[in-house]
Amino acid sequence: MIFASDNWAGAHPAIADALADHAGGHARAYGDSDLDHEIRRRFCEIFERDVAVFFVSTGTAANALSLASVSRPGGVAFCHAEAHLVEDEAGATEYLTGGTRLARVGGPLGRIDPEALEEAVRRYPPEFLHAGRPVAVSVTQASEIGTVHTPDELDAIAAVAERHGMAVHMDGARFTNALASLDVSPAEMTWKRGVDLLSFGGTKNGCWCAEAVVLFDPAQATEFAFLHKRAAQLLSKSRFVAAQFQAYFKDDLWLDNARHANAMAARLADCVGRSAKARLAWNPQANEVFIVVASAMVERLIGEGVAFYGWSAPEGFEGSIAADEEICRFVTSFATTADEIDRFAGLIA
Amino acid sequence: MIFASDNWAGAHPAIADALADHAGGHARAYGDSDLDHEIRRRFCEIFERDVAVFFVSTGTAANALSLASVSRPGGVAFCHAEAHLVEDEAGATEYLTGGTRLARVGGPLGRIDPEALEEAVRRYPPEFLHAGRPVAVSVTQASEIGTVHTPDELDAIAAVAERHGMAVHMDGARFTNALASLDVSPAEMTWKRGVDLLSFGGTKNGCWCAEAVVLFDPAQATEFAFLHKRAAQLLSKSRFVAAQFQAYFKDDLWLDNARHANAMAARLADCVGRSAKARLAWNPQANEVFIVVASAMVERLIGEGVAFYGWSAPEGFEGSIAADEEICRFVTSFATTADEIDRFAGLIA
Amino acid sequence: MIFASDNWAGAHPAIADALADHAGGHARAYGDSDLDHEIRRRFCEIFERDVAVFFVSTGTAANALSLASVSRPGGVAFCHAEAHLVEDEAGATEYLTGGTRLARVGGPLGRIDPEALEEAVRRYPPEFLHAGRPVAVSVTQASEIGTVHTPDELDAIAAVAERHGMAVHMDGARFTNALASLDVSPAEMTWKRGVDLLSFGGTKNGCWCAEAVVLFDPAQATEFAFLHKRAAQLLSKSRFVAAQFQAYFKDDLWLDNARHANAMAARLADCVGRSAKARLAWNPQANEVFIVVASAMVERLIGEGVAFYGWSAPEGFEGSIAADEEICRFVTSFATTADEIDRFAGLIA
Amino acid sequence: MIFASDNWAGAHPAIADALADHAGGHARAYGDSDLDHEIRRRFCEIFERDVAVFFVSTGTAANALSLASVSRPGGVAFCHAEAHLVEDEAGATEYLTGGTRLARVGGPLGRIDPEALEEAVRRYPPEFLHAGRPVAVSVTQASEIGTVHTPDELDAIAAVAERHGMAVHMDGARFTNALASLDVSPAEMTWKRGVDLLSFGGTKNGCWCAEAVVLFDPAQATEFAFLHKRAAQLLSKSRFVAAQFQAYFKDDLWLDNARHANAMAARLADCVGRSAKARLAWNPQANEVFIVVASAMVERLIGEGVAFYGWSAPEGFEGSIAADEEICRFVTSFATTADEIDRFAGLIA
Repeated sequence: MIFASDNWAGAHPAIADALADHAGGHARAYGDSDLDHEIRRRFCEIFERDVAVFFVSTGTAANALSLASVSRPGGVAFCHAEAHLVEDEAGATEYLTGGTRLARVGGPLGRIDPEALEEAVRRYPPEFLHAGRPVAVSVTQASEIGTVHTPDELDAIAAVAERHGMAVHMDGARFTNALASLDVSPAEMTWKRGVDLLSFGGTKNGCWCAEAVVLFDPAQATEFAFLHKRAAQLLSKSRFVAAQFQAYFKDDLWLDNARHANAMAARLADCVGRSAKARLAWNPQANEVFIVVASAMVERLIGEGVAFYGWSAPEGFEGSIAADEEICRFVTSFATTADEIDRFAGLIA
Repeated sequence: MIFASDNWAGAHPAIADALADHAGGHARAYGDSDLDHEIRRRFCEIFERDVAVFFVSTGTAANALSLASVSRPGGVAFCHAEAHLVEDEAGATEYLTGGTRLARVGGPLGRIDPEALEEAVRRYPPEFLHAGRPVAVSVTQASEIGTVHTPDELDAIAAVAERHGMAVHMDGARFTNALASLDVSPAEMTWKRGVDLLSFGGTKNGCWCAEAVVLFDPAQATEFAFLHKRAAQLLSKSRFVAAQFQAYFKDDLWLDNARHANAMAARLADCVGRSAKARLAWNPQANEVFIVVASAMVERLIGEGVAFYGWSAPEGFEGSIAADEEICRFVTSFATTADEIDRFAGLIA
Repeated sequence: MIFASDNWAGAHPAIADALADHAGGHARAYGDSDLDHEIRRRFCEIFERDVAVFFVSTGTAANALSLASVSRPGGVAFCHAEAHLVEDEAGATEYLTGGTRLARVGGPLGRIDPEALEEAVRRYPPEFLHAGRPVAVSVTQASEIGTVHTPDELDAIAAVAERHGMAVHMDGARFTNALASLDVSPAEMTWKRGVDLLSFGGTKNGCWCAEAVVLFDPAQATEFAFLHKRAAQLLSKSRFVAAQFQAYFKDDLWLDNARHANAMAARLADCVGRSAKARLAWNPQANEVFIVVASAMVERLIGEGVAFYGWSAPEGFEGSIAADEEICRFVTSFATTADEIDRFAGLIA
Repeated sequence: MIFASDNWAGAHPAIADALADHAGGHARAYGDSDLDHEIRRRFCEIFERDVAVFFVSTGTAANALSLASVSRPGGVAFCHAEAHLVEDEAGATEYLTGGTRLARVGGPLGRIDPEALEEAVRRYPPEFLHAGRPVAVSVTQASEIGTVHTPDELDAIAAVAERHGMAVHMDGARFTNALASLDVSPAEMTWKRGVDLLSFGGTKNGCWCAEAVVLFDPAQATEFAFLHKRAAQLLSKSRFVAAQFQAYFKDDLWLDNARHANAMAARLADCVGRSAKARLAWNPQANEVFIVVASAMVERLIGEGVAFYGWSAPEGFEGSIAADEEICRFVTSFATTADEIDRFAGLIA
């Protein structure tokens, strides 16, 4: 009963098979193999337009390099106050951008509030050099706490960005879970909503190590290529990332994995809803479920071998937590089974 | 007949199997799995001392972060004028160190000349703030052109470094080929020779993506951990790099792969020695063979599907090249077969 | 009636004279003249201990290089949410530190609240690599809004810093105003309170361009020298900064200037206290007075040639501001005259 | 008899007077005073076109920020192998550009050889990402060793730059000495020769601290302003740099100072030409004279209170130096007197 994180899961068998299939033979290195080119074209099909794609080894690299590519001296990039970017990447963005500041923006349940964004940006008036200047906003989709910005919310955020000349970046470490949750196309959740750059994550959804930066303006590719190389992210045997994406996209594996993970989260939420010993902290919209349980139950679950993490109450949390209660995060993945959920349900019944 | 680079090869079957074996199940992320810990201990055994080990995704990351960890303001790091570090990494070291300068040092056939190093370092006298200051020397072992520093040469380089308070880094993208060539232990080629930090490469020798920074002073691990994380090199499913190293070290696969590659290079050199249409540019010591052939032969070989790269005459090259001749590089790997060599021998017979 | 900023003032006549006195002759460049050495010794006397001193051209440079000298990868430096460092330096610290994050800490009326600091630091637990790590706290003394941390408050801040292994930096752009306000010695306001590094400002208090970084651990000087040089802050004719400091320290000019500025602020506060058309926003403790006036009065004052800036209500502001009222900042300096104050008093009488 | 450096000289009396004249009164800070604006317009007149001007505190800042403003990821900037930029600025350019590499180009007697530049640039072919890419060439005018590029040489360098898409920067720490030497207009030595950015130095030629970056494309000003501010180079009492430039440009003081310094150098060269105990190392073209003397004479001169520095033989030096001889550098300035030269002449007669 492992709900600690979707990156505790291994690799989907189809991903493993794809890697094994490509193990033999020789191919051009540094992203120039036939397979690399094929997969980049596949991204264009998936996003229904010409895009530039760069494979990287971590979501942190995808985020930091995306922001580096749109940064300028004195730059300030905005993100949700609880975003992975600012909470869990040890200053990678500040480092790899050469000092762009991350400014925290509020919003209920992990989603950026467009009005709060507007207010935060206004702290950097364009005529006031001393404050620095807004360069980008990064939206986490799905958010760190399993919620999803609606297309309208994304539009509202992009409108603020456009008004202030900022680029829109989407941190899609759990992109596909959000996609499955909204049931829209990749295009509809990204460039049609004003997104300029995307961190496209495959690792949490069944790959071993497959992340990509997607630039919706492919003219940026020449500049990005140097940033990518000198940030030590141009993999020599890049085709093994491509191979993972090949299997990932084949027969909608990526969507199926995400739908499964989301469905497991919904099943978990259901069993919490029926339990007298636990309650939902808020409604899950992707593959993360946050529940409130007594501390004694936390101990018991750990004792029974259930893996999960404690969490702090986020902005917009409307419930109440007693002194002897805790919020706990449960993450599902392609590898979560209905049986695991049901066994967990038994523990909190 | 692919001799373009050892990173054009795929993955050794044992590496592929190891990855598949670990695909199932769950494990702690970010380098904290049992397997990660086991493999770090394995590195300690291999190097016969307590070492700190950080997995990274590229050799460029290993080099740049190694140097970043020993850099100080105004720092200058020395490397061979033809080293990969300064010729082929697009300024990654300068970027990730925040501006440490790479100073090129001469030396015959890809090896740093200790006297040239001494002279280069003396351009930065300690009392003269304006010039900057020496912080490290990076030795490429095996070198970019398939030669190997002897233990005595390494000692002489380390002596210069010690005299000037510099750290010694070894770029071991082809570490095992050098090890097999010298037939010494890992300890004898590294810390016993004064090496402080090592970029340990597995990718060119049969892995898919397995590189590591090895710190011979494990007390540096705390600092390095932050550098590693914020450079976006802490892989979430780190255990899949560990899995590759597990297979790599098992039953001496790494040494066998390197010995095979070196033997194929020797076989190739032999057939060049017997050919009237080609000659060795210099004697190979690892898994790269540089030969001089007529331009017409270059065309013919390409036409026959032989893949290789042209090269410039390095410092210390003592041969002569006619106007219609070229130096070409042939790299062998674990995947090179005797049959390939023999077919190539036929073409230049 | 210029109250816009103390850096709108010119230079004190004694400073101007000192510069003229040293205009002739030759002297060693780059901080190595007799005068440079004499003034560095003078700093040691003033601070009653051996200190290292580096002249820089701006307070921003002093702040950013101070923090750079104590930063480490993944570093987070804490400062008041309204500090100049984070509000008015366009990301200089983030840039010159190579990406150290500035984290905002609350506290009433411009002063860091030690408890809020403790809480902010705890968001970066030492065992949690992903968040980054605390490296320093910067205290602005006097604060951006004319208040002064008491020695006890400085002790409490330093205690938090010590508990978490952070360096303590003091941004002393208005150091002498705070000193005069507290009526303590330089030592008592700095290293005896746990301060490790100081941005010592002379420019706002009667110099043309005289700022210094003071390191209370002079052993840091060797490292800092490289940082200073490569940040382009080693002035060739450094002795002209030294000459300003010579006059600045002579016959207590620095203290007299600050006492005068503070007294002018008190006089201004007095006349506000007697006015029915304006009220103090909070009590001034140094050379800045914040008053609440009707917007119509703002217009009138501007029309009468009074120069000042509007301001936002800070954390801890306990007054109330009507919809047609504004908070305005009035800064006094060595050049402010009692006559100016009195004329202003007439306008708001 | 001080010939150590032109930055050992003090300030010209007219500069000192100008500073004193502006000491009183108040004016807007941060480059926004009437005087700042006036002087920026003056630069436009002097260069006969619209230019953007930013005052900085050191020549190193001018150089590093100029190059930062034209750098891109993976960038390589070319300069003469003996340029101040790469020899004497402790890595400021590498630091403030976030890792742009400085590549050394040869050329006789301190001047870049356009053919050597072409060859150096070709090491970074545009289609080869791994090497990095050329972004700028920096020409030192006058050179570090008192020589001056002719307009034709500048044209040839700019032609190489244009061919490879590089910006042309001129390090004009001794700009006016070169101008006086060539007897051309500022426009003719800069933008009419293809120069894009200029480090305009006043400090070595009679100012206390007056350096500027001149952008010949004023559209770059918006971007540069942020770079300038966050590099801690936006001086609060900026008008005191403006005041120095006001006096500097008034009645051709700048040209007169440079002409005087150059004439003193010529006078010194003359007396060397007549001496049997010294000879010119090469012909001076600006305000630096390099002579060859016996080591015993070096000792004697030092004993007589003559200040100067020893120097290494530069590329292109065609003379010969005996084992007991040395090359010494003598720098003249606005403050050098004919009497000093004549006394020196007596010592080597």
